[in-house]
Amino acid sequence: MININKPSLIIDSLKVKLNIQNMIAKLDDVKNLRPHFKTHQSKDVSNIFKILGVKKITVSSVSMAKYFAKDWNDITIAFPVNILEIDDINKLSRKITLNLLVESIDTVVYLQNNLKNKVGLFIKIDTGYNRTGLTSEDIEVSTIINEIRNSNIIHFKGFLAHAGHTYSAKSTKEILSIMDNSKKILSGIKNKYIHSFPNIITSYGDTPSCSISDNLNGFDEYRPGNFVYYDIMQYHLGSCAIEDIAVAVACPVVAKHKSRNEIIIYGGGVHLSKEFMEDDNNNRSYGYVVEFTNYKWKYQDTVSYLKSLSQEHGILKVSKELMNRVEVGSLIGILPIHSCMTANLLRDSSILV
Amino acid sequence: MININKPSLIIDSLKVKLNIQNMIAKLDDVKNLRPHFKTHQSKDVSNIFKILGVKKITVSSVSMAKYFAKDWNDITIAFPVNILEIDDINKLSRKITLNLLVESIDTVVYLQNNLKNKVGLFIKIDTGYNRTGLTSEDIEVSTIINEIRNSNIIHFKGFLAHAGHTYSAKSTKEILSIMDNSKKILSGIKNKYIHSFPNIITSYGDTPSCSISDNLNGFDEYRPGNFVYYDIMQYHLGSCAIEDIAVAVACPVVAKHKSRNEIIIYGGGVHLSKEFMEDDNNNRSYGYVVEFTNYKWKYQDTVSYLKSLSQEHGILKVSKELMNRVEVGSLIGILPIHSCMTANLLRDSSILV
Repeated sequence: MININKPSLIIDSLKVKLNIQNMIAKLDDVKNLRPHFKTHQSKDVSNIFKILGVKKITVSSVSMAKYFAKDWNDITIAFPVNILEIDDINKLSRKITLNLLVESIDTVVYLQNNLKNKVGLFIKIDTGYNRTGLTSEDIEVSTIINEIRNSNIIHFKGFLAHAGHTYSAKSTKEILSIMDNSKKILSGIKNKYIHSFPNIITSYGDTPSCSISDNLNGFDEYRPGNFVYYDIMQYHLGSCAIEDIAVAVACPVVAKHKSRNEIIIYGGGVHLSKEFMEDDNNNRSYGYVVEFTNYKWKYQDTVSYLKSLSQEHGILKVSKELMNRVEVGSLIGILPIHSCMTANLLRDSSILV
Repeated sequence: MININKPSLIIDSLKVKLNIQNMIAKLDDVKNLRPHFKTHQSKDVSNIFKILGVKKITVSSVSMAKYFAKDWNDITIAFPVNILEIDDINKLSRKITLNLLVESIDTVVYLQNNLKNKVGLFIKIDTGYNRTGLTSEDIEVSTIINEIRNSNIIHFKGFLAHAGHTYSAKSTKEILSIMDNSKKILSGIKNKYIHSFPNIITSYGDTPSCSISDNLNGFDEYRPGNFVYYDIMQYHLGSCAIEDIAVAVACPVVAKHKSRNEIIIYGGGVHLSKEFMEDDNNNRSYGYVVEFTNYKWKYQDTVSYLKSLSQEHGILKVSKELMNRVEVGSLIGILPIHSCMTANLLRDSSILV
């Protein structure tokens, strides 16, 4: 029997499984999937991937790679190499197949001089997100490739991109066009080097485009992460139906304010994160509201929402019906705006149902 | 020798000490201070309070009370009682002096029936923040007091308020006027009941008003929390000078983009939280930038700032001078927008210097 008395992430294992199966179904081969595990950071969820045939993963930090290295022996750290963590990188690469990401020749030279075991290396290409990466025309790309061309310790893996600008796209059409453009850029640069490096691949990320696209081909490898849970942000981008959202935060109700249709929950910024969405009138929502039946939920109440968050408190604006139904001491569910942030905060308070 | 290789909270112990001493100096007696420990959640920092004469504390969850109960024997949980945690409340109240907070008769009746040891009870009064609490005119106040009047297990402690609306005030004058108004409300309701309960007190929170006010009297007890560290939000409210901010997040530099004056740090929303401030042109800042000398800092560079955050990445917009000075592999400091949220995320990666 589950006994929840503080904010906890309820993970619907059936929805998780369906979300993974749907993504795999779009691929030519499950081998082309290297899911990003930063979203869930959970061994239980990682086992579902394993059962469904996934053999390799992506993470976004050395710490996460260490956490998963017990169970996964092919890991890409999709984050520019932090050279200060060279000791941990060397420990990891002794044990597993480790792929790193670079975007500067200085880092590559540092790696050449300090790596103790063989690693795979991707060059990060910026396809328009403007966070990290080199443009495909940057001469530093060829400088890096020349540096590692004859390396015994660095194995050139190919080109990797994360099209994070899909998150600010205004339509699913725009998202697909970002994906197409990234495909042109990555294929172009791969073709330029394929003769010298016949095994290089293109690796592409982001949940919105991988979810909205009907077929996943044109890249050699796909690294979506958020799709395992989805969230309200993805729902508004068109990546998923609201029924696909696989996590809800269970929060104890601690007070009711009938005069202003507000319910106070134990569940604040330290549990849900302060991510929000704004409507056209600048009203913020920090989450949607659901009710549990045996820790399962169905989104129905479109009136109620999470209006504000402080460190431990949440204020729900609620429908009259919900106000009357819910008592102090009951649990209410919140569908998170951004499940990656919420799942990270509730890592130690997660329950797979 | 300190060896930092991932995002870490650097706590300047001298500044912490000065911030606490300055707050104590405004009080008639250090006994009137019951600092809120939700900001730091750190045993090291709690020891500095102890050395400076503080004997009692505030927390915002049962979990935090459990964490501090080993070292502190007088704790107020300033959060509406979560009746689902009754077992932990009973364990705590066996060991320490525990004060709880209520705002509904239902919760009080539940406590009467389920408490196993004596606790102190505050009634939460809403002085205008509109998050939790009863208005001083609400008849539920007298209903609650009648219920516990002859209780053997619940000891009526008095009235408690948190004037969180100071955080959205437009001037220090407005902050002081909120404090004055809260004083009138709490004193008024205390005077109404003091004859029946000669030992009841008024307890008042919030860092902005306690920091801006020159003298702290008129309430019987003060519960500021954030002042121990302060942050950019408090600086803009006028609560502190920028030199008073006692924490900076050390983040490894992982990439430089000279063409757009941007530096990429290992340090994202999972380290700093996604709190931001917006200027008049809707430009967001997620933190100010400092450089370390032996893990101490001085804020000087008013051009550079933390422009955006994803899960693990931060993008700094930087001055040309900083771009030239900083190398991949060096550490850069970020003064957080909201130190309570940042310190919570970096609880396990904190260093007191």
